[in-house]
Amino acid sequence: MNSYSRVRVGVVGATGYSGVELLRLLSRHPAAELVAAMGAPGAEPRHVPSLRRVWDAPVNGLDLDTLISSTDAVFLALPDHAAAEIAPPLVDGGKRVFDLSGAFRLRDAAVRRRWYPKTPEGPRAVVYGLTEHNRDRLRASTLVACAGCYPTAAILSLRPLLAAGLLDAAARIVIDAKSGVSGAGKTPTERTHFSECHGSLSAYGVFEHRHAVEIEQELGTEVTFVPHLLPIDRGILETIYAVLAPGVGEAEIAAALHAAYDDSPFVRLTGRDLPEIKHVAHTNFCDIGWRVSAERKQIVLVACIDNLVKGAAGQAIQNFNVAFGFDEGLGLN
Amino acid sequence: MNSYSRVRVGVVGATGYSGVELLRLLSRHPAAELVAAMGAPGAEPRHVPSLRRVWDAPVNGLDLDTLISSTDAVFLALPDHAAAEIAPPLVDGGKRVFDLSGAFRLRDAAVRRRWYPKTPEGPRAVVYGLTEHNRDRLRASTLVACAGCYPTAAILSLRPLLAAGLLDAAARIVIDAKSGVSGAGKTPTERTHFSECHGSLSAYGVFEHRHAVEIEQELGTEVTFVPHLLPIDRGILETIYAVLAPGVGEAEIAAALHAAYDDSPFVRLTGRDLPEIKHVAHTNFCDIGWRVSAERKQIVLVACIDNLVKGAAGQAIQNFNVAFGFDEGLGLN
Amino acid sequence: MNSYSRVRVGVVGATGYSGVELLRLLSRHPAAELVAAMGAPGAEPRHVPSLRRVWDAPVNGLDLDTLISSTDAVFLALPDHAAAEIAPPLVDGGKRVFDLSGAFRLRDAAVRRRWYPKTPEGPRAVVYGLTEHNRDRLRASTLVACAGCYPTAAILSLRPLLAAGLLDAAARIVIDAKSGVSGAGKTPTERTHFSECHGSLSAYGVFEHRHAVEIEQELGTEVTFVPHLLPIDRGILETIYAVLAPGVGEAEIAAALHAAYDDSPFVRLTGRDLPEIKHVAHTNFCDIGWRVSAERKQIVLVACIDNLVKGAAGQAIQNFNVAFGFDEGLGLN
Amino acid sequence: MNSYSRVRVGVVGATGYSGVELLRLLSRHPAAELVAAMGAPGAEPRHVPSLRRVWDAPVNGLDLDTLISSTDAVFLALPDHAAAEIAPPLVDGGKRVFDLSGAFRLRDAAVRRRWYPKTPEGPRAVVYGLTEHNRDRLRASTLVACAGCYPTAAILSLRPLLAAGLLDAAARIVIDAKSGVSGAGKTPTERTHFSECHGSLSAYGVFEHRHAVEIEQELGTEVTFVPHLLPIDRGILETIYAVLAPGVGEAEIAAALHAAYDDSPFVRLTGRDLPEIKHVAHTNFCDIGWRVSAERKQIVLVACIDNLVKGAAGQAIQNFNVAFGFDEGLGLN
Repeated sequence: MNSYSRVRVGVVGATGYSGVELLRLLSRHPAAELVAAMGAPGAEPRHVPSLRRVWDAPVNGLDLDTLISSTDAVFLALPDHAAAEIAPPLVDGGKRVFDLSGAFRLRDAAVRRRWYPKTPEGPRAVVYGLTEHNRDRLRASTLVACAGCYPTAAILSLRPLLAAGLLDAAARIVIDAKSGVSGAGKTPTERTHFSECHGSLSAYGVFEHRHAVEIEQELGTEVTFVPHLLPIDRGILETIYAVLAPGVGEAEIAAALHAAYDDSPFVRLTGRDLPEIKHVAHTNFCDIGWRVSAERKQIVLVACIDNLVKGAAGQAIQNFNVAFGFDEGLGLN
Repeated sequence: MNSYSRVRVGVVGATGYSGVELLRLLSRHPAAELVAAMGAPGAEPRHVPSLRRVWDAPVNGLDLDTLISSTDAVFLALPDHAAAEIAPPLVDGGKRVFDLSGAFRLRDAAVRRRWYPKTPEGPRAVVYGLTEHNRDRLRASTLVACAGCYPTAAILSLRPLLAAGLLDAAARIVIDAKSGVSGAGKTPTERTHFSECHGSLSAYGVFEHRHAVEIEQELGTEVTFVPHLLPIDRGILETIYAVLAPGVGEAEIAAALHAAYDDSPFVRLTGRDLPEIKHVAHTNFCDIGWRVSAERKQIVLVACIDNLVKGAAGQAIQNFNVAFGFDEGLGLN
Repeated sequence: MNSYSRVRVGVVGATGYSGVELLRLLSRHPAAELVAAMGAPGAEPRHVPSLRRVWDAPVNGLDLDTLISSTDAVFLALPDHAAAEIAPPLVDGGKRVFDLSGAFRLRDAAVRRRWYPKTPEGPRAVVYGLTEHNRDRLRASTLVACAGCYPTAAILSLRPLLAAGLLDAAARIVIDAKSGVSGAGKTPTERTHFSECHGSLSAYGVFEHRHAVEIEQELGTEVTFVPHLLPIDRGILETIYAVLAPGVGEAEIAAALHAAYDDSPFVRLTGRDLPEIKHVAHTNFCDIGWRVSAERKQIVLVACIDNLVKGAAGQAIQNFNVAFGFDEGLGLN
Repeated sequence: MNSYSRVRVGVVGATGYSGVELLRLLSRHPAAELVAAMGAPGAEPRHVPSLRRVWDAPVNGLDLDTLISSTDAVFLALPDHAAAEIAPPLVDGGKRVFDLSGAFRLRDAAVRRRWYPKTPEGPRAVVYGLTEHNRDRLRASTLVACAGCYPTAAILSLRPLLAAGLLDAAARIVIDAKSGVSGAGKTPTERTHFSECHGSLSAYGVFEHRHAVEIEQELGTEVTFVPHLLPIDRGILETIYAVLAPGVGEAEIAAALHAAYDDSPFVRLTGRDLPEIKHVAHTNFCDIGWRVSAERKQIVLVACIDNLVKGAAGQAIQNFNVAFGFDEGLGLN
């Protein structure tokens, strides 16, 4: 069906929401051969009902030896501490690892210890996997810490504006983020019980969310970040408030964003037509729109992604594509 | 505010969805004094956030002695086996008990053992608490087994038609029932996890649901009953299919239902305008509509209730009102 | 049933969402006699399905003479321009008018002309109907411009803090507001079509929403306000970001809010337990919680209301209660 | 990227929900070249926001001459009467036409006049486009009347059982169908207004739905069919009730269905694990499960499809693939 030499890939954590999305995408990726899907150690083999006739092999219990002997690259869709444990032996075994957890994202050791106390020190060379901003380093990567879902939308929106000096550095940036419930994972909890979410909305993690730290690391500035749990399954919308630097107007904003993303296949700039979750659901796109009030010296940006695709499985595959020299959109369209 | 002598009532299982609904309704019931709200034995006192300024007392751990000494009547919103255990000592202690569980609904001992194997034999005198059909017996009741949510809508719709001989007894009645997720209770499970329900629909319990047996007991005929889990919080809609007896048309159906319910404040007959869940949510109404095809000798009835009100807390209070000689709608409007 | 002398009330715009909510509440209000429910001029009499057996009279076409001759007070749940037209003759006819539209809310004539170009100048004496902040003036009111849904939650949260000088006046306040779709009214549009909203979220009206002007009028300071359309039916949650004045911490914030609202029956302060829409839906409560970061000099407030109750019909009745000297919560519990 | 000779295709009705789904699928179909997307006659060119960077051409106004001169095959996603008008000239112009409307589905002229009074007589040779049951005739087709959404799930489930004589022919089959709101199209109506659907469920079209007639035509027997409007965007679940012929049990049912579909790539038989809408959403699969009660001589089947894919755009493309001799699943995986 194609002329790529196929990379043998494995997925660990294959029964969670991001894991199933990885299986769905990788099973038809023209340059990947999906050779292993694993869950928790000792787990019974289990089929994924939604993938019948798409990918009919079972998800087996974790087996590190098999992973090392049979794959070239491994995707980890695990809790932080489990990823922290399994990534180093895979790297040592010569595998290229794409980790969807937060275990390796924070570079400053002290900061990481505060926010991820259960994860040991990371291997030396980690590349932060926000594809659009790190293509060069991804090509030479061994271990990729794929960007978090909330940080992906926030950093893509803000970094080009900060880099171009278009925002007032003294005024606090506010990121009001809203996510579908699949972002909280597959384990049933009171918080994610259907009757608790349906017809409701709640804020959580104010001043206490690890994604705030990740965003601040990548932007190099403080932000106020408040996430909310939306009564939808998948999708994130972030409304971002900042003060413009003197003299900055709509033209400068548009120019900076277009310069940053016109060659990026998965960032769609919608300008004054603000994006909606509906338009990015089930895709790898990040849609970014904005409104500027010169009178009020204020900018409001709105960014949308599908948290399980561009915020997780899709971006991991995008990173994989860049890392192995494939077309960035392979298997993602 | 009124001249009723107040009945002292307690609620056990007060933190579940039906329990909170009982607290909400009883705390402003003009003839009830809510003196005790209890959860599991040993549970820490806990406030219900949605009831702040409505009913500010805590829900305490279960304490049978306090219940017996301080109340006249007790509402049980518990799992079947817990209700089966606690109801007899309350009855022995002279309390009038309104049980929302299934523990005491089935009269035939062999049938009950098959479908409720964990519940011991019931006390001798149990009144089945479907208010509209049992007012006389409710007045003299000690222990009321309030009707199940699905059975309430099904029995209210079908029994007057069967009693009047309007349906073909040889043809199987089909009850296709759809319920909001709160009907499955407050304990988080994979089945009731938000992301599993949102945007989806599933059937369950085919040929295996205890409410089918309860319906068959009350109707005296076999039915095929299939429940489904709707992606909404509260409300039940049942679509009921039957074959008409020879010569029966729309007029006979309407006459039988109006004769049965024109004096019942909580049954609204909507005729050819089929009811919708939206119109009964947060109320104690059961709306019933129907369409008849004389050509096809077929009737389709549609019945709607709020599963937490008419299907649980509301009907229990309606039973309480009748049992104590109050106006049937007291505290329910 | 009670000893109040009843006020004869009429509702105009009685088939919209706020109108039906008014009928539901007023039909059982112990001090109100609901004598007229009207829709558009010339409209056919029409029953409201959800109110059967609650309030069985039809909604008739608008008839100003009947309104004036039969009522003491009139509630208007109409589009702005229709309310602007009908309120003055009612006031001239000696009626006390409670207007739920935006027609009379803005006091500055130039500002009003800009944002409500279709509404003529208002009568001289208008009282802004945010109950908790205007009780004294409501008692002497003739025409009450009930507060908008978004402004209600925002002003209740912020005004006591601004009045006490607890916020940094130089830093812009951000109000990120999310509303259920019923806030957009009952007229079908592409924007409120089910398939456009379900599973999605969108921002709208950035720098162009009239409620921003209303909030700024009442707070006396500029705010950045962005509303979003939530995929739920009813409820508003606002996340409010401000910078603290020097030396201000959690204690000062809590003290100011408790001083403002401890005697207000419909404002519930939840402190660090942030409120959720679920807890206020179908009630007249405004729940307000907050988190303070002394380190970051930042406060985040979260406020929730039901847009059709505290944000519309409920608050109008609360205003009516105060205006006529009844208990503030009459008919609202 | 592939060696197929590409078929030039056009889509008319390209801004509706099925139309957008056709564009999404055809724009990446390896054997189709999407050369024209059209809406209503005279419509302004308009881009589809969700398809940016997927398919960036505009949807233009209808232009029959361009369609005839530039395409080999045309997909019609139009209202019945518009499809009835435009299909004949396209067929006369030598195009192969895949019509998603109901205009040409009913073969009996008298029946068609009753249920589709606004559509003129159809061209002589129409193939009913339920792919799995009509592959041979599709190969030689000129005009394909793609199966309706509800009929697709019902006929796939029932026809093999009826053909094998496994069901009691004297007992009425009941089909209780539930559909997401996108099935009602994109035009805003009161019925499909968000606040009318959210948190609710309603039945409609009892004894009056044209899909009942279509199902009866294809099955050759009477059925009782009641559709319901689910508060979800996309997906259909049908619960089907029938009486078993004497001596029939689970084995015979399973054998008949497996014989019918084991070679069909888009029918997944789930046996006793009943299907859920979630598992088929955004796919071209029809999942069918069943439960048999030998004791009650009853079978309950549950079938799920995505109404916009297998129920509309996907099946149309599946028909196109068979008609042109491509692999049946091309562009659909």
